[in-house]
Amino acid sequence: MNTITTDVCIIGAGPSGLFAGFKCGMHKLSFVIVDALDIVGGQCATLYPEKPIYDIPAHPSILAGEMINRLVKQIEPFNPIILLEQKIDALKTIDEDTFELSTSAGQKIIAKAVIVAAGVGAFGPNRPPIDGLEEYEESKAVQYFVRSKNDFVGKSVVIAGGGDSAVDWAISLAEDGHCEGPVRIIHRRNKFRATPASVDKMEELEKQGKLQKIIPYQLEGLKGENGKLSHVVVKTLKGEELELEADVLLPFYGLSQNLGEILDWELGYNEKLISVNPATHETSIPGVFAVGDVCDYEGKLKIILTGFSESATAVHNAVLRIKKDEVIRFEHSSTTGMPQK
Amino acid sequence: MNTITTDVCIIGAGPSGLFAGFKCGMHKLSFVIVDALDIVGGQCATLYPEKPIYDIPAHPSILAGEMINRLVKQIEPFNPIILLEQKIDALKTIDEDTFELSTSAGQKIIAKAVIVAAGVGAFGPNRPPIDGLEEYEESKAVQYFVRSKNDFVGKSVVIAGGGDSAVDWAISLAEDGHCEGPVRIIHRRNKFRATPASVDKMEELEKQGKLQKIIPYQLEGLKGENGKLSHVVVKTLKGEELELEADVLLPFYGLSQNLGEILDWELGYNEKLISVNPATHETSIPGVFAVGDVCDYEGKLKIILTGFSESATAVHNAVLRIKKDEVIRFEHSSTTGMPQK
Repeated sequence: MNTITTDVCIIGAGPSGLFAGFKCGMHKLSFVIVDALDIVGGQCATLYPEKPIYDIPAHPSILAGEMINRLVKQIEPFNPIILLEQKIDALKTIDEDTFELSTSAGQKIIAKAVIVAAGVGAFGPNRPPIDGLEEYEESKAVQYFVRSKNDFVGKSVVIAGGGDSAVDWAISLAEDGHCEGPVRIIHRRNKFRATPASVDKMEELEKQGKLQKIIPYQLEGLKGENGKLSHVVVKTLKGEELELEADVLLPFYGLSQNLGEILDWELGYNEKLISVNPATHETSIPGVFAVGDVCDYEGKLKIILTGFSESATAVHNAVLRIKKDEVIRFEHSSTTGMPQK
Repeated sequence: MNTITTDVCIIGAGPSGLFAGFKCGMHKLSFVIVDALDIVGGQCATLYPEKPIYDIPAHPSILAGEMINRLVKQIEPFNPIILLEQKIDALKTIDEDTFELSTSAGQKIIAKAVIVAAGVGAFGPNRPPIDGLEEYEESKAVQYFVRSKNDFVGKSVVIAGGGDSAVDWAISLAEDGHCEGPVRIIHRRNKFRATPASVDKMEELEKQGKLQKIIPYQLEGLKGENGKLSHVVVKTLKGEELELEADVLLPFYGLSQNLGEILDWELGYNEKLISVNPATHETSIPGVFAVGDVCDYEGKLKIILTGFSESATAVHNAVLRIKKDEVIRFEHSSTTGMPQK
């Protein structure tokens, strides 16, 4: 496999990682972004692409997926190299200005600086322990993330879980009214881990016949043929079974998160987060920076905006490090404009 | 005059101040914004509303003025009180949870916290020392900021100055080609304080007859009647005079900046900037915060994005302070949504 030699290797293609790439481009640094997922955008693209976000400056309301699309557009003038579906397995310091990284796909990357923007780490859904789940996952009869509500128009939908995601999606799909019959939500007990307003909303939708709570039941199995789902089988603790007609099952049992090898790189940690100097966003290894939800410092706020700002600070300091022999003039983007291709 | 009682008084209606207002609204804090200018948006709205900015996240390119419009739209759901054309003359600590502010218009504001987002302070153009200038300022025959290039269509334009603003606007108006005759730029010497690329561009436009450099001349006077300009009079150091036909004069002699009384409030300063604790953005007076270009801390980057992020941190800590007797649950905007009116 080829070796990629670059100025900055960015680990994570969520909002902070993408924006770090953009800032590298503006400062004429080359960069490579690596992400474990099969798409860019991290949690925004995978978990809630159709949820509106209200606190991105100068965007009174923007869908998470649309925000990612715009970040991708912003980075495009720099012809970014983005390596997907591979994790960084190892980070090795060659000398004070050179790092060697290797990915799970066997790609080797030589970089002068590293920015860890890994969020909560590689993440995936907690899958229910049901026999034969894989074939329904493959046919998309079982989905853990809603990427587009259009997938469910005219379909009979069963949701499983009692937390925010389960409740929010049950409400959202029931309100739209495009599914076949009421949206059903299975939960093992009567108490949901959601805001009181959401719980009230479910009551209201149930009265309107748009939503039906199946309580106290747990997932037991799936029935169907060749990946085409026909029924979701549920069971009480006492063993009473029920078969629910269903085209689609959406289990929301939370996420497993895994920072993996990143926690072994001796970057300096605090409770599974990477401690950084907030003035530079550098970790305890000079030349390795951390930004966004993965980093920690006094006063850290875990919001997307903060990650953007941290990326600007990290790249600024990566520039100072990488171009230490040059006279650098930092200018506003409104003065420099975009680089000409 | 009425007294306004509010949770947070925000000094400055630039991007950081507007976004601080938005964050207050999201956290259900009331707020008042005060600015010395007659419009919101600070330098963005006044100095370069038609310049594109490229480094606002999820905005591949946005005009400074449009960014301000969108920040105003973002804040609208909170029915903001914005007091324009008045400076804060005095800040008085009544007790540890109460501040009294008074404005140059005599308005009194009682607030539980103060966020200083004053940028470079109240700012205004350096005006050339010419007799009878006022009547031409009033008729807009003399303008110091370009708010809309449409104002100059079909007009004969003279620009004065040798820095970035003078050169950028000369190029921009000459390229558009909507003015009457070539755009003329007066400068006292042959060397411009602008990027080499811009200086080259002026040469090129001069060859095309779209721009004319009037060198080495200085502004001497204005001729016209009842505010209608007919000629700009210029003079060399040796006393040679020239009369240039002109409908409009745009002098770009830089800005005078004035933080005024803010520097006397004992907030803790470093070189005419307000020193803050970057973990909270609090100044040396508890309950008084500073954000954006006016604040200083180790590693501070003076870009708009950083100001936004600092506003989020300041408001977060204002909430902790103001609601100290309540259990506060901070949630993402994608979970809470916007407050219902």
